[in-house]
Amino acid sequence: MSESLKRLEQQFHRIAQLDHASTFLGWDQMVMMPEAGMAPRATAMAELASMRHELLTATAMDDWLADAEDKLSSGSLDVGKASHVREMRRTWQQAIALPADLVHAQVMAGSRCEHGWRTQRAENDWNGFLANFKEVVALSRVEAQARQAQAPERFDTAYDAMLDLHCTGDSQALIGGIFAELKQVLPDLLQQVVEHQSSHTAKDLTGEYPLTDQQALSEKLMAMLGFDFTAGRLDVSMHPFSTGVQGDQRITTRYRLSDFADALQATAHETGHASYEAGLPNALQAFPIGRSRNMCIHESQSLMFEKQIFLSRAFGKALIGSLHEHLPGTRAFSSDDIWVAQTRVKPSFIRVEADEVTYPLHVMMRYDIESALINGEIEADVIPDVWESSLQQYLGLSTNGDHAIGCLQDIHWTDGAFGYFPSYTMGAVNAAQLSAALKQQHPDWQARFEVGDIDFVRDWLAENIWQHGRELESQQLIEKATGLGSHATALVNHLRTRYLDEKD
Amino acid sequence: MSESLKRLEQQFHRIAQLDHASTFLGWDQMVMMPEAGMAPRATAMAELASMRHELLTATAMDDWLADAEDKLSSGSLDVGKASHVREMRRTWQQAIALPADLVHAQVMAGSRCEHGWRTQRAENDWNGFLANFKEVVALSRVEAQARQAQAPERFDTAYDAMLDLHCTGDSQALIGGIFAELKQVLPDLLQQVVEHQSSHTAKDLTGEYPLTDQQALSEKLMAMLGFDFTAGRLDVSMHPFSTGVQGDQRITTRYRLSDFADALQATAHETGHASYEAGLPNALQAFPIGRSRNMCIHESQSLMFEKQIFLSRAFGKALIGSLHEHLPGTRAFSSDDIWVAQTRVKPSFIRVEADEVTYPLHVMMRYDIESALINGEIEADVIPDVWESSLQQYLGLSTNGDHAIGCLQDIHWTDGAFGYFPSYTMGAVNAAQLSAALKQQHPDWQARFEVGDIDFVRDWLAENIWQHGRELESQQLIEKATGLGSHATALVNHLRTRYLDEKD
Repeated sequence: MSESLKRLEQQFHRIAQLDHASTFLGWDQMVMMPEAGMAPRATAMAELASMRHELLTATAMDDWLADAEDKLSSGSLDVGKASHVREMRRTWQQAIALPADLVHAQVMAGSRCEHGWRTQRAENDWNGFLANFKEVVALSRVEAQARQAQAPERFDTAYDAMLDLHCTGDSQALIGGIFAELKQVLPDLLQQVVEHQSSHTAKDLTGEYPLTDQQALSEKLMAMLGFDFTAGRLDVSMHPFSTGVQGDQRITTRYRLSDFADALQATAHETGHASYEAGLPNALQAFPIGRSRNMCIHESQSLMFEKQIFLSRAFGKALIGSLHEHLPGTRAFSSDDIWVAQTRVKPSFIRVEADEVTYPLHVMMRYDIESALINGEIEADVIPDVWESSLQQYLGLSTNGDHAIGCLQDIHWTDGAFGYFPSYTMGAVNAAQLSAALKQQHPDWQARFEVGDIDFVRDWLAENIWQHGRELESQQLIEKATGLGSHATALVNHLRTRYLDEKD
Repeated sequence: MSESLKRLEQQFHRIAQLDHASTFLGWDQMVMMPEAGMAPRATAMAELASMRHELLTATAMDDWLADAEDKLSSGSLDVGKASHVREMRRTWQQAIALPADLVHAQVMAGSRCEHGWRTQRAENDWNGFLANFKEVVALSRVEAQARQAQAPERFDTAYDAMLDLHCTGDSQALIGGIFAELKQVLPDLLQQVVEHQSSHTAKDLTGEYPLTDQQALSEKLMAMLGFDFTAGRLDVSMHPFSTGVQGDQRITTRYRLSDFADALQATAHETGHASYEAGLPNALQAFPIGRSRNMCIHESQSLMFEKQIFLSRAFGKALIGSLHEHLPGTRAFSSDDIWVAQTRVKPSFIRVEADEVTYPLHVMMRYDIESALINGEIEADVIPDVWESSLQQYLGLSTNGDHAIGCLQDIHWTDGAFGYFPSYTMGAVNAAQLSAALKQQHPDWQARFEVGDIDFVRDWLAENIWQHGRELESQQLIEKATGLGSHATALVNHLRTRYLDEKD
């Protein structure tokens, strides 16, 4: 191994250990930490982040990277290391892109905006929010331009450079194309589904489901989905999430007394995220090449588990025995009753509560706004108007000026996390595509799902997605697994099949 | 502030944030972590320890310390900073004392010995243990001599230099003197107590006490003892412990179905440790001066809460209502029944299960052996014989060659933690002394304890111990609080009063 590569690996190994610390301190903060722990925890997390940044942007890094790249070009470093070096370069580049004073200004503006948002949302105070938010947008534009200027060959638009942080490798051209197609189809499809479902009513599943019983059921579901409890935990937090390292995946869910389906769905979703992480190449976990590809792929894994497996009619049959056992209050419902209730489609205001058919429309509204904002095509002032007209067009709804259920509902923009929203729907797109390819190769999938056998899905995902880490670019990965890069058709087919033909 | 002091503080601030990470990763490991998390956690912890060591032993540190010390001598740095600088110097000195190859050899020998011990203890394999342990002793002697050579003005014996790591500031001369006095008194006192107690039987408290009820009761006890649940948690681990930072104190206990007293006692003990930590000077928490004085003081705080408060006859009266409420199975017992049963004294083999009267004898047996070992006065081979004769002399017992209940029972020596054992009994000595001083100043203590008012104890400890951090040396601290340095009399008086006069 070349000396420069060795040095790079040592540096990234150390960075990975700081990340390990931040990962579990972050988990602890959301799941365990008492209130007064916040101040010392924030200080510690900030210091770990500084140390990480110092290591990642150490003066010698650029030289080591350049030396490794030279050796690759000259053939004195094995070509198999090319993607390893490429991903270290990319990680370094993202870290080095911004001047410290910009980062500082962004942290200040972001936390001011987020802090204000928490009350402004409740008070429907768009103007109050806007005052802070304009600064966030201005700084994010500077950020996007700086990132774009750093690698103009990779970024056609400023927004591309923001997408790179979350949807790494998936450009605005690609995502915009897929979303344009979905916009053509989904509003009509939605109308058809609503009409179709209006012919039969769904049973009301609400009841009283003791939380400890729900927890036992969630653990049972995780076990059915292949989660290894010797290498992970399930806990409770306000918002479900997944984090951890290989050997120690932590997922969370939350339980609502009246609604058992909510926790199960979140559990299945987070189990998908955790399964991807657990399946990444173990030997490479300290290096960027061994990490998850991007959020469009990550979300595809959670949606494979949530929408493609858990929400399928077939898997519902496998789960119903455990459901009846752990929650006797559900014994009046058949698996089909539950499936019908859980697949009800209805246009609504809140993204995080949206069903599978309307969810992409919520995402695309945000995508349209944030891409135009970052590319300087619109100003923040017009957001409420754009929101209202999109909401009308896509979902046939109006907030009537209640921004709490409109453009003030999400936290993402408050601290400048532009480029994240599209990953939700790109995840759904990729999941549908992966699922279609998998089902083609396993025509007996339905019979297997019905008896709770999903090992073949895990094996297939491990082989096609998990084990690759960042070896391939996002679109190469999807193409290798499904024969084509990401496209809208599979998602549309999936939604038609499930919600119109009910042949799911 | 001088530039060198500023640099020192920055460096120690960063070290404290790494310590924050190690603290909560350590807690997580004992309380939350799944089995397969061990390997990545160990890697991360080792890397954080390396980073800490690098920061603490950075080349410039000695210069900064020397500069600060010069400025103190010349009066250009305020004399109020003297102890601040002294404690940074001490921390640095302890870190810099050992060559890296010695530390490495110790880690290897220690983990081999500890690993082997886990089976050798079960198999009563003293010779197998000895083979590994000789290496640990040899390396610890090298360590002790290196530490002594570094500061010969502070360490009269090699063992003094090991004591410095745990009983910082309390020398072998001091501890040995106190222990000699206790050895004179305790064996006879023990005989008297056993005889005295033989005249009346204690009720058998064993029963079936549901763990969730015990947990609620432990939390109630903590609240009575002044624990702030907005700034800490109670959890379960195999061995009770206390850790955390200011604002976030984490203590653990463990519950036995048949025995409610065991968890309560551990909870009271750990609440004492946590209260000390929470009461340290908040503004100084990143620096050595703001940390706990030493383990002899730390243990005195846990024993204040466990033995002086919780185990007092008076506090038992305050607790009995909650006990009856949470554990209906105890309603047949009065608070005096419970006190009588909990204060039974009986010579036994296992230190961690020993009562208050015999515990110091267990510690002194170990102190005699380890001090002689480290000072090169005996070799490890003779440990079983020395053990047997001390056991006979102090407790009137014989292991009959069963080392699992003899010299193989403790983990401490396996990885070379010599100098720790005496802190247990120095803690009891200090606690008795503090308690006597407190009671003298608050003659109404008994009436207050009986109604569960212990705020005045917390206030007194905060003022006399907690708020001082490391401002004073250990003996100065005890003398300031009680009028005398640590001495044996108060503990002997306490034991006589509680176990012979029953006037507790």
